[in-house]
Amino acid sequence: MKIKEDAVLLAHGSGGKLMHDLIRELFIEKFANPVLAKEDDSAVLEVVGGRLAFTTDTYVVKPLFFPGGDIGRLAVCGTVNDLATSGATPKYLSCGFVIEEGLSLEVLERVLDSMVEAAAEAWVTIVTGDTKVVEKGGADGLFINTAGIGAVPEGVVLSGANLKVGDKIILSGTLGDHGIAVISKREGFEFSSPAMSDAAPLNGLVADLLSAAKSVRALRDPTRGGLASTLNEFATASKVGIEIDEAAVPIKPEVMAACEMLGYDPFHVANEGKLIAVVGAEEAPVALETMRRHLYGQDAAIIGKVTAGPPGRVILKTPIGSTRILDMLVGEQLPRIC
Amino acid sequence: MKIKEDAVLLAHGSGGKLMHDLIRELFIEKFANPVLAKEDDSAVLEVVGGRLAFTTDTYVVKPLFFPGGDIGRLAVCGTVNDLATSGATPKYLSCGFVIEEGLSLEVLERVLDSMVEAAAEAWVTIVTGDTKVVEKGGADGLFINTAGIGAVPEGVVLSGANLKVGDKIILSGTLGDHGIAVISKREGFEFSSPAMSDAAPLNGLVADLLSAAKSVRALRDPTRGGLASTLNEFATASKVGIEIDEAAVPIKPEVMAACEMLGYDPFHVANEGKLIAVVGAEEAPVALETMRRHLYGQDAAIIGKVTAGPPGRVILKTPIGSTRILDMLVGEQLPRIC
Repeated sequence: MKIKEDAVLLAHGSGGKLMHDLIRELFIEKFANPVLAKEDDSAVLEVVGGRLAFTTDTYVVKPLFFPGGDIGRLAVCGTVNDLATSGATPKYLSCGFVIEEGLSLEVLERVLDSMVEAAAEAWVTIVTGDTKVVEKGGADGLFINTAGIGAVPEGVVLSGANLKVGDKIILSGTLGDHGIAVISKREGFEFSSPAMSDAAPLNGLVADLLSAAKSVRALRDPTRGGLASTLNEFATASKVGIEIDEAAVPIKPEVMAACEMLGYDPFHVANEGKLIAVVGAEEAPVALETMRRHLYGQDAAIIGKVTAGPPGRVILKTPIGSTRILDMLVGEQLPRIC
Repeated sequence: MKIKEDAVLLAHGSGGKLMHDLIRELFIEKFANPVLAKEDDSAVLEVVGGRLAFTTDTYVVKPLFFPGGDIGRLAVCGTVNDLATSGATPKYLSCGFVIEEGLSLEVLERVLDSMVEAAAEAWVTIVTGDTKVVEKGGADGLFINTAGIGAVPEGVVLSGANLKVGDKIILSGTLGDHGIAVISKREGFEFSSPAMSDAAPLNGLVADLLSAAKSVRALRDPTRGGLASTLNEFATASKVGIEIDEAAVPIKPEVMAACEMLGYDPFHVANEGKLIAVVGAEEAPVALETMRRHLYGQDAAIIGKVTAGPPGRVILKTPIGSTRILDMLVGEQLPRIC
């Protein structure tokens, strides 16, 4: 890197010479691809006709680095996962950086390296971007927005409104890893076996699942608001009930211990490398087997089923045989988790 | 609006009930369209095959409201203009909000109203979005990212690398209005005739221009870094020289006066509703006439020409007959202008 400064200056966002140097020497160098290298205001991409998925997310996670990931990995994986769970094959990402004056260039470089690595793993290309610098105190370190474009293969129609009574609910792995990893790091909690974020791109897992099972009704990654919020969204959109068997939900002991200590409900804690699949009952076993063969689905489990109702109601069957309503998160338990 | 709170709470970004209420009662209500109303993680759009333009920008302008515009109008127009100056017909926008806890909901609503109005004027639809809330002091009020998708018509190939010796440089209107309007408002300067931001969507102007003149080589909107930075980008990319006739560059008297008082060079000040067109010499008159007939091109002027070089060099001919090199902005003169 030929940039001489150690930290980001306001002038790096000026539109002038320093910004051009930063973009060329750092962003274009790292994200190396011919579209970005043109330095035009828009990327121009060849696409085939059909259905395109388009999504966006801004990442404001604090701290920027945490066990198992960082804001860069999150910014790529989160948007890839929003595309993948729509049934799309993620293709292109944009990135918009808001940098607080004074951020160390070494930190920025580490974040970019992490984005490059995650983009390579997810087979997506970062084709266009923007950098803004705000004065010290105007933002907290670094925020990253990514928007993404993917192609939806013919015949794939996934929607939270498609659930049918009798369908099975499959969770791709353990619950709450990301949220507990971030909050533990931020608050300085020291556990003997600390939680690791699950931040990962799920498009490979989704592709395997969709080719193995035709009756996939809906996919979603339970990020902010956790599994409970996603299930409530599904139940409301499809006007069905959902029944979850608490004992079947995989949760790591260290995450469960942290949740109990800190007073969090793991069903409300954010995940960044998990998905919920709703699949026709007949195909549920093959869907589960397919997911378990994938690196990011090894702990997949059938955790419940779709019921006739009451519509919009999510019920949790506890191990002792009682039931409770699993509501959407009300209020805020973990700000700046993604 | 059924939201009971007066200000944005951290819980409005939680992924839970309050966030769903905010999204439904405010964002989906305002941006009313069937794609957004599905509340899926990605918008799924039908597109025809061909070339797609894709761009992103984050807006961190301070203050949020200024004479002639606000952050909402800017966030729509800026991204529309990046698409339009690539030769694309802007179609769809995403929006990502970072909101500081405590922002008044009335302010947020005014910004959204302004986005709705600008999107209607530009014929674009806001199809997907994201909202993050950070704690007080974690961000300064409100940042908005918009990414945009447009379709590039067959045969349209615009690039800053396409300039040919002899081409004319056309500027669509007066220089520096946006930057001076924002800085004057921010610093509380009171001028007898205050500058007004030119923030406007330029896709209509671009469409008219492209249908009137086939020899348009490149278009760009001179935002951060101003006209000087854009011309330097063009000259470098095309390995040509550019000669600008200072007397031909339209600048409003109030903007010129403010620049002189505040020590700014109008060639470095940001514009948000202007474009530079490089057009073959033969078609320059018809291009100019076409632009002048458009609301946002009334003050268009031919301000210079492409020369053999030295390559990458932009020369300004002053009214008294001398010449000076018009360099890219070095350092930062106007932070948080867009």
